[in-house]
Amino acid sequence: MTDLGRRVAEAADLVTVALDELLPRGEGPESRLTEAMRYAALGPGKRLRTYFALETGRMFGLAERSVLRSACALECIQAYSLIHDDLPCMDDDDMRRGRPTVHKAYDEATAVLAGDALQTAAFEILAHPDTHPDGAIRAELVTKLALASGAKGMCGGQMIDILGVRDDIGGVARMQRLKTGALIACAFELPLVMARAKEAERHALLAFAHDLGLAYQIVDDLLDAEGDPEKMGKAAGKDAAKGKANFVTLLGVDAARERLGLLQEQTKDHLEPFGKQAEFLRASVDFVLERRH
Amino acid sequence: MTDLGRRVAEAADLVTVALDELLPRGEGPESRLTEAMRYAALGPGKRLRTYFALETGRMFGLAERSVLRSACALECIQAYSLIHDDLPCMDDDDMRRGRPTVHKAYDEATAVLAGDALQTAAFEILAHPDTHPDGAIRAELVTKLALASGAKGMCGGQMIDILGVRDDIGGVARMQRLKTGALIACAFELPLVMARAKEAERHALLAFAHDLGLAYQIVDDLLDAEGDPEKMGKAAGKDAAKGKANFVTLLGVDAARERLGLLQEQTKDHLEPFGKQAEFLRASVDFVLERRH
Repeated sequence: MTDLGRRVAEAADLVTVALDELLPRGEGPESRLTEAMRYAALGPGKRLRTYFALETGRMFGLAERSVLRSACALECIQAYSLIHDDLPCMDDDDMRRGRPTVHKAYDEATAVLAGDALQTAAFEILAHPDTHPDGAIRAELVTKLALASGAKGMCGGQMIDILGVRDDIGGVARMQRLKTGALIACAFELPLVMARAKEAERHALLAFAHDLGLAYQIVDDLLDAEGDPEKMGKAAGKDAAKGKANFVTLLGVDAARERLGLLQEQTKDHLEPFGKQAEFLRASVDFVLERRH
Repeated sequence: MTDLGRRVAEAADLVTVALDELLPRGEGPESRLTEAMRYAALGPGKRLRTYFALETGRMFGLAERSVLRSACALECIQAYSLIHDDLPCMDDDDMRRGRPTVHKAYDEATAVLAGDALQTAAFEILAHPDTHPDGAIRAELVTKLALASGAKGMCGGQMIDILGVRDDIGGVARMQRLKTGALIACAFELPLVMARAKEAERHALLAFAHDLGLAYQIVDDLLDAEGDPEKMGKAAGKDAAKGKANFVTLLGVDAARERLGLLQEQTKDHLEPFGKQAEFLRASVDFVLERRH
């Protein structure tokens, strides 16, 4: 494993241990709910949002414990959105990261509730005094996460996705920005809020997050077109099969690859103002985008 | 209409107008989502949580604008929980308050997302500086609402309800406390937090909320057994038909009525420390419990 690979894996371990501590444990008949929440949130995952949040926190010299709580909130939102996206009435997926999805491992009602309660847990974690000593900062963290994940962010993007209303690159890009881009950007936003960062720093990092999120989606679409379902732990070719437009179905594989290459360099350029401090974030761009699953 | 009836109706109007202002409006293809959110949250409803929050705010001399934002958050959680509870995989209800449920008026995927985004909106509203000037108070409001609505509150109660695991009064009471009691109590908790109320005041009002919530559930179970589906705007006799135990199926109608009567007086007794200041809350007990739908 490369140094960077180790760094990403360490971030994933840190957040999984922290989530295990923070997520409720069951007592009484409702333990089915807490078990399903834990099944979804503690299972395998790349935990890239956590990695980005922790690296951003380090750049600003923040207390790791605080940033890690923000990362836990992001992972709760991510886990809840995957549970609900996988439901029969949404994308109807049976497998996720090589394991049965929550409605398959449990049942649909439990899956709806586990997603609901994971969303609640995210806000509970952020609002707790352990996340930051300043209440105004905690409230702002809640605001940023809510904006990224609600009707004008992730939920809005998922609505566009299931409606399938997009027939050009602009429509696909807008869907991506809302559905996945907003929560990726939030991995930078939360530490930026805690650091009380300057506007210029904020703009640079959010531009970085924006291009990274877009590039990540192109990689996702390339893997959906060409990837190995076994390595991905989920089905491939889903968008094409459902007649859904994405970057690759619209541009073709070659043009999508070319666009990805340009974007990859552009993404790194945004980090220039941070100099050597951003070395791990810069290195992670290639690491993250050159994944095979 | 009685004075009290007018007071309750005014609270309902106030919160509906405020929600209309606060809930997002659609632009682009995701407007289906914001429309469904508005359909659920702005439709007819008793808005009792709002009424209790506003009366509590008045008792403590709080700014109505702040309390109203808390009430909006409570109504968003209430609306989201009804949307998800009505889903085919949960209670499978077609009608709610005389109108088609969200998954009937729209579709299941939209209903799941509208519920999700309404939950998010609740926390977004609470965390906004307009809700209270002190950030630590705003963060505590988020904490209280999350505790009331998550795995150890409303979601946990709904899990118990759909599992149907309860065969004695204790089990039914515990389910009620989590599923509906916690959010009713939260209508008092949020203004109590804003008022920085004394522990004794807090205990008295939460005991009031506890007994009121329990009594309200007994009324609900009596109406389910005896009510007029047309007046209720939803089906009746559902628990018995599904073999689900509730206060009336376990105690019988007469014993349930007797229990309700005792509880009704006990509920009002909790308000004694507040004297004349609590006159409207005291009067609302009979008003709320003597409903016919």
